[in-house]
Amino acid sequence: LEGGRLLPVKRSLQALNPAEIAGLLESLPPQERNVVWEMVDREDDGEVLLHLADEVREGLMREMDTAELVAAAEELDIDDLADFIEHLPETVTQQVLKALDADDRARLESVLAYEPDTAGGLMNTDTVTVRPDVSLDVVQRYLRLRGDLPPHTDALFVVDRYGAYLGTLPLDKILTRDPDSLVQAVMEHEREPFLDTLSDREVAQRFENADLVSAPVVNEKGILLGRITVDDVVDVIRAEADHNLMAMAGLDEDEDLFAPVRKAARRRALWLGVNLFTACIAARVVGMFEATISQVVALAVLMPIVASMGGITANQIVALMVRGLALGQVGSGNTGALFKKEIAVALINGLLWGLVIALVVLFWFKSPALSLVIGLALVMNLGCAATAGVFVPLLLRRLRLDPALAGSVVVTTFTDVMGFFLFLGLGTLILIH
Amino acid sequence: LEGGRLLPVKRSLQALNPAEIAGLLESLPPQERNVVWEMVDREDDGEVLLHLADEVREGLMREMDTAELVAAAEELDIDDLADFIEHLPETVTQQVLKALDADDRARLESVLAYEPDTAGGLMNTDTVTVRPDVSLDVVQRYLRLRGDLPPHTDALFVVDRYGAYLGTLPLDKILTRDPDSLVQAVMEHEREPFLDTLSDREVAQRFENADLVSAPVVNEKGILLGRITVDDVVDVIRAEADHNLMAMAGLDEDEDLFAPVRKAARRRALWLGVNLFTACIAARVVGMFEATISQVVALAVLMPIVASMGGITANQIVALMVRGLALGQVGSGNTGALFKKEIAVALINGLLWGLVIALVVLFWFKSPALSLVIGLALVMNLGCAATAGVFVPLLLRRLRLDPALAGSVVVTTFTDVMGFFLFLGLGTLILIH
Repeated sequence: LEGGRLLPVKRSLQALNPAEIAGLLESLPPQERNVVWEMVDREDDGEVLLHLADEVREGLMREMDTAELVAAAEELDIDDLADFIEHLPETVTQQVLKALDADDRARLESVLAYEPDTAGGLMNTDTVTVRPDVSLDVVQRYLRLRGDLPPHTDALFVVDRYGAYLGTLPLDKILTRDPDSLVQAVMEHEREPFLDTLSDREVAQRFENADLVSAPVVNEKGILLGRITVDDVVDVIRAEADHNLMAMAGLDEDEDLFAPVRKAARRRALWLGVNLFTACIAARVVGMFEATISQVVALAVLMPIVASMGGITANQIVALMVRGLALGQVGSGNTGALFKKEIAVALINGLLWGLVIALVVLFWFKSPALSLVIGLALVMNLGCAATAGVFVPLLLRRLRLDPALAGSVVVTTFTDVMGFFLFLGLGTLILIH
Repeated sequence: LEGGRLLPVKRSLQALNPAEIAGLLESLPPQERNVVWEMVDREDDGEVLLHLADEVREGLMREMDTAELVAAAEELDIDDLADFIEHLPETVTQQVLKALDADDRARLESVLAYEPDTAGGLMNTDTVTVRPDVSLDVVQRYLRLRGDLPPHTDALFVVDRYGAYLGTLPLDKILTRDPDSLVQAVMEHEREPFLDTLSDREVAQRFENADLVSAPVVNEKGILLGRITVDDVVDVIRAEADHNLMAMAGLDEDEDLFAPVRKAARRRALWLGVNLFTACIAARVVGMFEATISQVVALAVLMPIVASMGGITANQIVALMVRGLALGQVGSGNTGALFKKEIAVALINGLLWGLVIALVVLFWFKSPALSLVIGLALVMNLGCAATAGVFVPLLLRRLRLDPALAGSVVVTTFTDVMGFFLFLGLGTLILIH
């Protein structure tokens, strides 16, 4: 690319699918990204844009005119279009809607009525349905007339004349069972339909647990609305995992690897500002002991050790809690048992490493009293760290905030403050008085 | 459960699938876990064990005798059995192998020959194959004779008489195309077969990008060996995401929420020990400036601020790098551009927050020189943090270590050491001399 040889790039682009092109674009710095984007086949524009992280997409869409955006939208399936349309300016949306036929418009509007993070928002309306009282032979003749099935169709859905969901007819049953059997004799009932208001996280969990490829979505009256397919669920799982990893560091999962510097700086600034504020609180705590430090400077030398051991302990527990909460394995029923375990683990490690650091300090500063101070402070701070590690994520969840935000800033501030306070406080008590 | 009413628990267990039972067991403290485990239907034992995190599984399997383990193994599919057998003691493995018929034993051994984290290790050998020169009608008659297809069969694979992979015949094509067409006229070639030695990460990426449900696995001669299905890929994606989240905190992704205290303490001890060692290095750096601190105690009060701002900056970049490396979006081609961006972002934020903290310090300590020292140190430390954040994960990857290990301990030590050194060093230069 750097040599300006565009033809081979263009040729290798054609061998990639839209998701791969999106991954490639995300890994390119802005200038090269625009060059490659220009070379993408116009037909793939819509799908590639959909696979991009929000930020990268916005960057590229700013450069497109209305006609290009409408053309990109026209190539998409209804469920993808529903995702895409949320990112379009109002004027373009109107044009896209106008270009659709009445049927597709009605379908699109039914999907758009849902929040994107619900079963209704994830679903596609391209379900193929059959009646329970026909034979498999009739089903097969119908399918042959109909032609290709929508992608990821592993089963047809059986509905009554009012459209209520009755059961699932897997394709392999149509192929392997006696053609004279009736649909109702062959269909399966195991696939419990998803309510349209179910959260996407719950949808993903059920897909994972039951190894589903597709699942029916119904409204509260049991009427079949559409289906969710595993490819969209994989995206939900990936997005949630990304979210937890990035949120622990105070970042957004849509952060672009090559976001414009000014934009990235502005976004990171917020978290750094919060941290500056909390670090000032920790500094205030140290400041309370200025007189002690001026008498025993060794306290200033050793205080980062106590704080950092607490930070590590708390962050390990936060990672465990964030995963447990995401998988629905941590709740009010087992918090007590979990806390008891973590406190015990922290105290054992506190005693072990407290003893080690006490010995190190004894050799270093030849002061038994100082050894005692750091050993005690370490044990107590790890106890505080375990408490914060368990309860801060739970508290955030209770406040309807993201438990992963407990990572880095919040919990570390707590362990820093407690570490400084315990160590310098004990130092004042034992070494000065 | 606490009230000792076991019957309703048993009844609700029967409504759960093995993956859900595994999730439930993981969320229970050890004692209750054993009670519920006893109530699980014996037929589900094998599948439930497979869905458990390694540690939880080991705990439960220690309590089972050989006959129970063999019985659990017998209920499993070949690819699941291959996973399961790795967790069995040698004597039990022998018995399980003896209980299999020759066909299944040969299949099992072909899967066991691969590392679990390769396409070969992920594959199942229950493929249904057809020849290219028969008609769809013949295929359908064959399927009807054969009966139910293996789970997640969305397509048959077309092979020549030597077993070489030729193409894919999706089930919906069999249903919708003219029964007189030949397989070779209808089959698809888009699904590129996976080489058996491909890494599971690469497999997952390709499934995600191409929205696959199943894919053929071949050896280097192109002979079809088996197939990989999306349910196993979803597990790979989940495991990798878990791994990154936990490894950033220095934990193993298989860590049991309710690991026995002694075991959990031992495992966490390692990371804490490493951190204690690196924190001592940071303390040594502070110790170099004891004389300076004893003259200007305010330096001890403020030094945690400089260090912690560096830690946050570095951890944000590490999170971005870990995700980028996992998705294959960061490589030697774009490291330079990425570094330039991150340095620019860090310096902008360094200038902004350096100015803010300088003003705060000016009001707090009324010392313009001290303000200058902390402002300068902050800018410089954020620059160091950006450098470490970009290059430490890359270095770890180069050393064939896990880039996520850069999180917390390694990078934070670096920013602590540099933060203390820069701040106290500048303090000595500007305030003392």
